[in-house]
Amino acid sequence: MKVLEGLKVLDLTHAYNGPFCTALLADNGAEVIKIEPLSGDQVRNWGPIDKKSGESGYFAFLNRNKKGVTLNLKSEEGKELFYRMVKSADVVVENYRVGVTKKLGIDYETLRAMNPGIVYASGSGFGQYGPLSHRAAYDVVAQSMGGMVNITGFPDSPPTKVGPSIADSATGVHLCLGIMMALYNRERTGEGQHIDVAMLDTIFSLLENAVVTTTMTGEIPERRGNSANDISPFDIYKATDGYIAIGVGNDKLFAKFCDAIGMPDLALNPLYLTNILRIENYKSSLQGIIQEWVGSKSKDAIEKILEEAGIPCGPVLNMQEAIDHPQIIAREMIVDIKHPIIGDMRIPGCPIKFSRTPGKVETPAPLLGQHNKEVFGLTDEQLDMYKQKGII
Amino acid sequence: MKVLEGLKVLDLTHAYNGPFCTALLADNGAEVIKIEPLSGDQVRNWGPIDKKSGESGYFAFLNRNKKGVTLNLKSEEGKELFYRMVKSADVVVENYRVGVTKKLGIDYETLRAMNPGIVYASGSGFGQYGPLSHRAAYDVVAQSMGGMVNITGFPDSPPTKVGPSIADSATGVHLCLGIMMALYNRERTGEGQHIDVAMLDTIFSLLENAVVTTTMTGEIPERRGNSANDISPFDIYKATDGYIAIGVGNDKLFAKFCDAIGMPDLALNPLYLTNILRIENYKSSLQGIIQEWVGSKSKDAIEKILEEAGIPCGPVLNMQEAIDHPQIIAREMIVDIKHPIIGDMRIPGCPIKFSRTPGKVETPAPLLGQHNKEVFGLTDEQLDMYKQKGII
Repeated sequence: MKVLEGLKVLDLTHAYNGPFCTALLADNGAEVIKIEPLSGDQVRNWGPIDKKSGESGYFAFLNRNKKGVTLNLKSEEGKELFYRMVKSADVVVENYRVGVTKKLGIDYETLRAMNPGIVYASGSGFGQYGPLSHRAAYDVVAQSMGGMVNITGFPDSPPTKVGPSIADSATGVHLCLGIMMALYNRERTGEGQHIDVAMLDTIFSLLENAVVTTTMTGEIPERRGNSANDISPFDIYKATDGYIAIGVGNDKLFAKFCDAIGMPDLALNPLYLTNILRIENYKSSLQGIIQEWVGSKSKDAIEKILEEAGIPCGPVLNMQEAIDHPQIIAREMIVDIKHPIIGDMRIPGCPIKFSRTPGKVETPAPLLGQHNKEVFGLTDEQLDMYKQKGII
Repeated sequence: MKVLEGLKVLDLTHAYNGPFCTALLADNGAEVIKIEPLSGDQVRNWGPIDKKSGESGYFAFLNRNKKGVTLNLKSEEGKELFYRMVKSADVVVENYRVGVTKKLGIDYETLRAMNPGIVYASGSGFGQYGPLSHRAAYDVVAQSMGGMVNITGFPDSPPTKVGPSIADSATGVHLCLGIMMALYNRERTGEGQHIDVAMLDTIFSLLENAVVTTTMTGEIPERRGNSANDISPFDIYKATDGYIAIGVGNDKLFAKFCDAIGMPDLALNPLYLTNILRIENYKSSLQGIIQEWVGSKSKDAIEKILEEAGIPCGPVLNMQEAIDHPQIIAREMIVDIKHPIIGDMRIPGCPIKFSRTPGKVETPAPLLGQHNKEVFGLTDEQLDMYKQKGII
């Protein structure tokens, strides 16, 4: 049994934030019916592309565990098929541009009249209201306007976007969280509701203490590279064969750290006696001393020495190294699936570990319209008829 | 009414990932009882610090809407007070180092025997099992080992950590999501369970297509700065007064973009006819052409021109600009509270918008032990007695 067994989700989403939300639901046992336009989700063209078949690896990992149907929601008959499903569904998820669902007649107010318990979740760039709500936004726009880009990177580098599209993925997780909270409430009240999560808001909520630092002190946080400004030493250093992160959180750990690197006197040096002193004297001297020690050794050698001393540290891993890491493997964060066209694939696993009802990647992403017959309950003749009419 | 009204949460967490999880619960109406050691959560010393009072702004924003008690869980009587609360609680959240809860006698197995419905959530650096589970990890270590740091930044810059501690915050959101899913399941089965979320796993799950790119193509994704590798133009450019993100997703939009920047011929140039061609010829020429146009104008002027043309774009905002942005204000993403010691504060709001049961920041973070009497149901004499014994 999986944790969400019995939950039925109609998934109108495309691209990244919505499908990331519904992948979390599907991995954990919800029946997710991915509804695509007849032309398919645009992600079916996003890389990596399998050279032999032209199938998208992006689509394949993001839509695992889901069923797939096609539906022309601009046609009356298509809409009828959708409405029929709404009556027995628990959740609808969409990430159209604001206003589109109303035009199509599949907005919350319309569906609620058919099913008052429906939980209707909308992901978007700027949200369903506010002066910019009408605008489309890409991940990089939300990261930029939300304040993340300006405080990522080095003081002498341009503002730096987070490599992967975390405005999208984090919005997907929040959207999923909103759905689960609304379902909790529905158990008590019998009523569903509309959930609105924006990439801009999500990014703004993930800035740690940057917001209160600005409002309380009037100082505007700027890029500071990889070192912390409130703990020292706490940085990423360059070893002979790559980089390694080291964090020394307090005076006791610093004494252990100095012993471990063979410089016990450092802990007694008046320049480094307390965390505040170490912060003051980090850039001018302490950073250089540690970098010199790290710079003469391999990542592995350093990790071994510091682990024995109980100093938190870890190498900067490239994707191949991360995928092959024993901890990632032990946690089943990389799993094998068989895709009907691509063949054997290795994709990311499930980050939430449930003791009694574990999530699992079980079925590959659907081919376009793969579950039309089953989901709509059609005979072969009906299926042909709908196809000829351009409805599914 | 808030969405989680009626939910009772015992919060044993400290630092950032656990408290971020329980803030999401508290903002949405759960009764969250933050249980601190007598010395207080270490975050009470984290900056920004209010100059007049010495109170932590970090603690103040992160623990809003929660009640606060102190409890010495190493004492038998302290443990008894905790066990008494467990019997009527729905959720326990902890982020101790792996093994500590067992030593203290407050691990899942122990609490489950008292309350089989309890949902017990554990946040950690590496998770509750696997070869590294015993190790402590800071955010920067999880970001580094999870693969995020190596693909953030510029090709000619060192690997770059995401400025704010997103391994912590994203783990908090996933932990919260796990709790809500387990509660959904408990409605059907009557049973709780143990949820295990690691910062390493969470980061690894937020890498977009980097994992499948590696496993499918054998090519290891590397840092590529702010430009996308699959859409062009899609980058952050330097204006006269700062930076601005611009994304042009397809050929149709590119033609509009060229019109908007007064170079309609560009869209007909054989070098830029398709997205694939634009990617090929981006670094060698297209990037420079766009940068030259952007470089002669202010962010505001560019945003106005491109918005009219329907081209997704947005300025890189610093924290003050983001806080003051009309969209952030309209979405109540920055809210005013009154802290009993710090006074008036402005802190981040709630990113999940519920139509029927909106979340809200209502009470400031608790002072140390502020709700001891109320939560434990003690008389003044009993309170004094427990204090003298060092139990609360």
